[in-house]
Amino acid sequence: MPKYVYDFTEGNKDLKGLLGGKGANLAEMTNLGLPVPPGFTITTEACQNFLRDGVVPEGMREEVSAHLAALEARMGRRLGQADDPLLVSVRSGAAFSMPGMMETVLNIGLNDESVHGLAKQASGNERFAWDSYRRLIQMFGKTVQGIDGELFDEALEELKDGRHDLELEAADFRRLVATYKDIVRAQTGEDFPADPHRQMSMAVEAVFKSWNAPRAVLYRRQERIPADLGTAVSVCSMVFGNCGMDSGTGVAFTRDPGSGQQGVYGDYLQNAQGEDVVAGIRNTMPLQELESLDKAVYDELMRIMETLENHYRDLCDIEFTVERGKLWMLQTRVGKRTAGAAFRIAVQLADQGLISLDEAVTRVTGDQLAQLMFPRFADSGGEVIAKGMNASPGAAVGKAVFSTERAVELAARGEAVILVRRETNPDDLAGMIAAQGVLTSRGGKTSHAAVVARGMGKTCVCGAEELDVSVKERRFTTPSGVVVSEGDVISIDGTSGTVYLGEVPVVPSPVVEYFEGTGEADDELVGAVHRIMSHADEVRRMAVRANADNAEDSARARRFGAQGIGLCRTEHMFLGERRCLVEDLVLATSDEERERALAALEPLQRADFTGIFQAMEGLPVTIRLIDPPLHEFLPDFTELSVKVALAGDGAEKKDRELLAALKRLHEQNPMLGLRGVRLGLVIPGVFAMQVRAIAAAAKAVPGSRAEIMIPLVAAVQELEHVRDEARQILAEAGVEALIGTMIEVPRAALTAGQIAEAAQFFSFGTNDLTQMTWGFSRDDVEAAFFSKYLELGIFGVSPFETLDRDGVGRLVTIAAEQGRKARPDLKLGICGEHGGDPDSIHFCHQVGLDYVSCSPFRVPVARLEAARATLAGAGSDTR
Amino acid sequence: MPKYVYDFTEGNKDLKGLLGGKGANLAEMTNLGLPVPPGFTITTEACQNFLRDGVVPEGMREEVSAHLAALEARMGRRLGQADDPLLVSVRSGAAFSMPGMMETVLNIGLNDESVHGLAKQASGNERFAWDSYRRLIQMFGKTVQGIDGELFDEALEELKDGRHDLELEAADFRRLVATYKDIVRAQTGEDFPADPHRQMSMAVEAVFKSWNAPRAVLYRRQERIPADLGTAVSVCSMVFGNCGMDSGTGVAFTRDPGSGQQGVYGDYLQNAQGEDVVAGIRNTMPLQELESLDKAVYDELMRIMETLENHYRDLCDIEFTVERGKLWMLQTRVGKRTAGAAFRIAVQLADQGLISLDEAVTRVTGDQLAQLMFPRFADSGGEVIAKGMNASPGAAVGKAVFSTERAVELAARGEAVILVRRETNPDDLAGMIAAQGVLTSRGGKTSHAAVVARGMGKTCVCGAEELDVSVKERRFTTPSGVVVSEGDVISIDGTSGTVYLGEVPVVPSPVVEYFEGTGEADDELVGAVHRIMSHADEVRRMAVRANADNAEDSARARRFGAQGIGLCRTEHMFLGERRCLVEDLVLATSDEERERALAALEPLQRADFTGIFQAMEGLPVTIRLIDPPLHEFLPDFTELSVKVALAGDGAEKKDRELLAALKRLHEQNPMLGLRGVRLGLVIPGVFAMQVRAIAAAAKAVPGSRAEIMIPLVAAVQELEHVRDEARQILAEAGVEALIGTMIEVPRAALTAGQIAEAAQFFSFGTNDLTQMTWGFSRDDVEAAFFSKYLELGIFGVSPFETLDRDGVGRLVTIAAEQGRKARPDLKLGICGEHGGDPDSIHFCHQVGLDYVSCSPFRVPVARLEAARATLAGAGSDTR
Repeated sequence: MPKYVYDFTEGNKDLKGLLGGKGANLAEMTNLGLPVPPGFTITTEACQNFLRDGVVPEGMREEVSAHLAALEARMGRRLGQADDPLLVSVRSGAAFSMPGMMETVLNIGLNDESVHGLAKQASGNERFAWDSYRRLIQMFGKTVQGIDGELFDEALEELKDGRHDLELEAADFRRLVATYKDIVRAQTGEDFPADPHRQMSMAVEAVFKSWNAPRAVLYRRQERIPADLGTAVSVCSMVFGNCGMDSGTGVAFTRDPGSGQQGVYGDYLQNAQGEDVVAGIRNTMPLQELESLDKAVYDELMRIMETLENHYRDLCDIEFTVERGKLWMLQTRVGKRTAGAAFRIAVQLADQGLISLDEAVTRVTGDQLAQLMFPRFADSGGEVIAKGMNASPGAAVGKAVFSTERAVELAARGEAVILVRRETNPDDLAGMIAAQGVLTSRGGKTSHAAVVARGMGKTCVCGAEELDVSVKERRFTTPSGVVVSEGDVISIDGTSGTVYLGEVPVVPSPVVEYFEGTGEADDELVGAVHRIMSHADEVRRMAVRANADNAEDSARARRFGAQGIGLCRTEHMFLGERRCLVEDLVLATSDEERERALAALEPLQRADFTGIFQAMEGLPVTIRLIDPPLHEFLPDFTELSVKVALAGDGAEKKDRELLAALKRLHEQNPMLGLRGVRLGLVIPGVFAMQVRAIAAAAKAVPGSRAEIMIPLVAAVQELEHVRDEARQILAEAGVEALIGTMIEVPRAALTAGQIAEAAQFFSFGTNDLTQMTWGFSRDDVEAAFFSKYLELGIFGVSPFETLDRDGVGRLVTIAAEQGRKARPDLKLGICGEHGGDPDSIHFCHQVGLDYVSCSPFRVPVARLEAARATLAGAGSDTR
Repeated sequence: MPKYVYDFTEGNKDLKGLLGGKGANLAEMTNLGLPVPPGFTITTEACQNFLRDGVVPEGMREEVSAHLAALEARMGRRLGQADDPLLVSVRSGAAFSMPGMMETVLNIGLNDESVHGLAKQASGNERFAWDSYRRLIQMFGKTVQGIDGELFDEALEELKDGRHDLELEAADFRRLVATYKDIVRAQTGEDFPADPHRQMSMAVEAVFKSWNAPRAVLYRRQERIPADLGTAVSVCSMVFGNCGMDSGTGVAFTRDPGSGQQGVYGDYLQNAQGEDVVAGIRNTMPLQELESLDKAVYDELMRIMETLENHYRDLCDIEFTVERGKLWMLQTRVGKRTAGAAFRIAVQLADQGLISLDEAVTRVTGDQLAQLMFPRFADSGGEVIAKGMNASPGAAVGKAVFSTERAVELAARGEAVILVRRETNPDDLAGMIAAQGVLTSRGGKTSHAAVVARGMGKTCVCGAEELDVSVKERRFTTPSGVVVSEGDVISIDGTSGTVYLGEVPVVPSPVVEYFEGTGEADDELVGAVHRIMSHADEVRRMAVRANADNAEDSARARRFGAQGIGLCRTEHMFLGERRCLVEDLVLATSDEERERALAALEPLQRADFTGIFQAMEGLPVTIRLIDPPLHEFLPDFTELSVKVALAGDGAEKKDRELLAALKRLHEQNPMLGLRGVRLGLVIPGVFAMQVRAIAAAAKAVPGSRAEIMIPLVAAVQELEHVRDEARQILAEAGVEALIGTMIEVPRAALTAGQIAEAAQFFSFGTNDLTQMTWGFSRDDVEAAFFSKYLELGIFGVSPFETLDRDGVGRLVTIAAEQGRKARPDLKLGICGEHGGDPDSIHFCHQVGLDYVSCSPFRVPVARLEAARATLAGAGSDTR
């Protein structure tokens, strides 16, 4: 039988999975000799079994009794003993922090008898005893018995009748206990349970059940915490911050979580229990003031904080209680911090010698670095008119518009707009694309607006519930009476969720300026980033490349630390003015016309490649031959149909020809149509022209290292045909280049062993691979139903954001293994957007890829995460 | 070192892979004591090594010399010995028959000296000797030296100057030898090689090389013969059918390959070598007449044929030569036969006790059964005006039309048309769909017309090269002067490749009438089919179900032997008059409107299901919930855009609303969009309505066995949501039904272990699975480039016709294994079109599926192939 209960003296901080964060850290502090009220923790395993079977597991009850008996013996009091009661708290604590998501019940052991014993313990403080008793009934009723908390709150308000809570007296609380008991009886049909043991076991089960409360399920889904972990339950002997002005409760950080600076950061509330701080009933005092109230306690607290920081070797946050001049530690954990603080603290701790530079790298994340790279609003200026959820980071400024039509219309005139809606739906897609940012008054981080905006990398603040949005009247109103009408300029901060009236100046990130080499070097933050990134580059196994299609982006990528181009998309070179050349190619009716069109494109392509090779001199450049179907370069079919129909006999000849071509080329599902290698095989000369241009450019630029990549290969035979032709052209030009393929079609992954025989490298095109593996057309489904899917828990994050390990990841694993088996020196990389996503980068490291390639802006993130993956070793993830 | 050469006395018929069909059977006949000219065979392995390395493998030359020396010793003559030469033939012979695809050289060993020795051997027959010599130069020049055969043919014609070839004399052939030598010298710059050993080794290498001749490569691709097998080479001492009127050569079958009847079937040609029969220079005589020419030889031949049939236990075809009254066997093999003969012969042999009924089942194929099920033209009547390739079977009658536009136009008026083109291209797709059949004058079995027609199941005759098609003048002309203009009725037979003028009456297949229970039972063919099918049903492990969407098709499927419905597509029930109800559903702007639309659909669905359950009483019926995107039920977006634009302000309200809905629902790639389970999860009530209708119908029909199938599942979570809702509805109705899922998205196959936890059955939807695994939209790519892909050898057969084992098959295997591991009693089936394809059925058997489901018409084919797969055991394929 497993051990279901651990005394605080038995556990330690590494048993988080079993004891939860709270239980593990209480044990750790106990072992450190810090003043922790004695107690024990029931394991997450017990919770898992309870949730599976609906009853507590065999043997747990007996273990709890034994530990409780030991606790009673140690404290010299029995639970709920009438004349001298032991009281306990029952607290939830999962392996991952889920703040406020689950339940806690304090003061267990009180009833009509033991309340007098408690008063006696507190030197006859009846007020304190009855206050504690009413708190028990209130928390127990709400948490364990599922009674609407409003009923208790209303009864309290009625009783107070305008008085401050410190003005209430023992008799008031005594009356309140009676009222609360009536509420319990009315709501449940039974009396409030007087038996202390029954109180405790009911509370334990209620905490177990709270794991599956809707808000907890939703939180886990959003935070991608596995659903089957369960929560531990800590049972802790009570200490009281509410037994007089020489008592109190507080929270503190060992250093400033906003800046990372060392010092005293925290809040203290006299004569109160912990929930009063959370509820904000009274104003707290800054922690520093405790020094003047009780210097001994304050000094002890400072010593403990130093002990904790040195022990945990990180910023800690703590909860503590002072009971009649005696300090008790109720909780500690490694504290959350801002992105900037994370970098500063990591480097500070390394400088203090508390952690190594390796460890410093693991203390910061790619997401934090990305946050530091967004442009932000200048601190000064800007009237804050609302706060919403920080759904998609960035800073956006523009005129408020209230419909997609207006957004598209104004954007077409070159105006910056912010699309404001109650909530968005698939019809708003065009408006979201046109806008600088999106603001909604409803919906959370998985709402349609949030999901789609994140997918686009567009700034978004959602769920700003205080805004009253009237689409009909084209305006919104704030509670303070500010009215923003269509055309009024607003600014939204997707990193903080803040909404400003008017234009707030946007300043570039100093971190980006550092990467660009344009900023001031003596900023502390920049220094910390520099230290971390330099070490990350020494540590990581995988190389980092960038996806870039022109010389300018390539040069920037190089400044950002890219070690090559992993994906140069040649189709972007056919846009703009060159469209007409593609039209000529499509409209060609003879070999001569087609060759003329290709001949016109070749020097342009050559020049494109020359620029990129120059920017990346000495580094590899992977050039993907043309991928999209040709009709993508032509006008829209339906629009042109309408134009020609309306023009009747007066329609232009070229329009008629293009319409005929579009009819011929029209595809039901262009993503699965005539594109990529298929195009290269069916339309003679296109690929050959590109390879000639690459060869000529490579020859012209000393130090160029071209890699030719064939898209959309599904069968090795396709690749062989193109490879043979390309090899011949390269040989004629006297140029050496690797020839490889995208792995972006499921069949390519499944037959990778065959394909590797003909490919010198694989680059995983995980965008298309995700589309085909899931059967999702990203253009269609992201807006249409991803928010619904997130809401239903079908996935915790869009598979286009983070690589789906079970499905797409399995194909990548198969392909990497079989490819390497067939060709041991096969080079493996990834060039889908996942190449810039932290969790996906860790996966790529584990699968053994040689490099990741991502957008230039994500290159620093990838460098950092590649290092973290190396340090985490096999089997890691980013949580 | 491997053994590269086998004497005829060393091999046997089971060594086909090593000795080729010809070599293996020559060895078998030698061992049977039949009169085979002595010789030896060089293995396919030697050929493979030669083709890989470009030189004959080490040791082969010595082995050949040793065997030749043994042959010379046995015959008492040396190769090319001047006064008494041994002559040999060098013949190709691969494991699979590739008729006429590779090369043969006869009379090796002749030169200016040995020609006299040959004459002496032939009792001074100088004419024969010089004729043999010129044949050697002609064949050698053409085959080994690559000289255009026309040059030799022209020289012969010039010499004959109108004379019959039997009128030519020794001096003529002597002159011809001189002329032929001149040709060789002029074409190659060298003299014809006089050294007999050099002749032989050059001939052997030429045969090796002929394996990769373009026509051989094309043939293998079409017949799906692996490219790396190589050919064996048989070296056989020459016997001569051309040394007088007591000599000759012939071919024969041990029974009629057309009907299967026993008797004497063959042709004989006096004083000739084998190639004369093939070339059709003179008319052959029926084999029976040999009896009067040489009774002894005839009787021996009859005895040998009986021996062979009893030994091979099958119809054999043979080649033989009579040399001055002595019979020699040159070749035998199990003979090709028509589909009807295959069934009759199999049953006859079983009746004779030569083979078991199990073996009889393996002697026929599903393709042959399918051929017997096509309607055919009545034997009488019909003027044959051309022959082309039998590209896609069936019988079609209609007015000839020469453009897609006319085809569509006339078909829209309800007229039957045959689309006639020089060749088709993707633009002809609409015309092909509209036509009853397709006729082209160019292109082979992998041409665009052939590939697309087969994909559609449309009758097609292609490559009728004698037709002069003028699209401009809208007519075609035959060599005999028949002119068929637009509107003239023609009939085409896709099974035989015949083109008829006028309407030929079509008669139903007696085999179909037998399955339907409407035909006469005493037909011999029907009797044979009955015997075979009855036994097949006893033998096979897999069940066979049908894909049917209504009661009528279900009833037919049942008559055809279906043991259930494997796929009932509910979306077909929303077409026709019910479209307007779907329009209401799409246009619904409130929950009430949507529920009203669903409520209107529910009783219709219930009636649909009731009819199917009644037809399939006692058998399982798998009903797939609605799969396609809703916009498929609405008008075409572009057409409606044009209509509304042209109508301007006068456009109808409903049209405007529909257009707005279409804009909203428009998808870039509908196949990868909002359909299947996604639709069910996003649009409330649709799936629930269908499940309610199923439950009500199942309750109303005793003996009904409903299975509810969820389409397009990619993640187990999707399935769980729908399953939970469906279970509740079923429980409320008090109906039991299995709930399972399609496996048609790659991710579903990759995560099958998870999905099986929530599914009681899997049905592989290999159409969509093929589309997504290859990244092919069938609608787009089949017409656009499959013929090109077949031509390039990227695949040997469309992956939509035959399941792609390496890619799609791998996913099926993964899913079957992991699904069964998670849920041992998981029911596995296939409902893609591959369920009716023989090779794919064998694959399904090997993977361990429980059933295949196919169109009602293919059910008998599937029954037969499932039995053949069972009998073939693991690892079989259909070749």
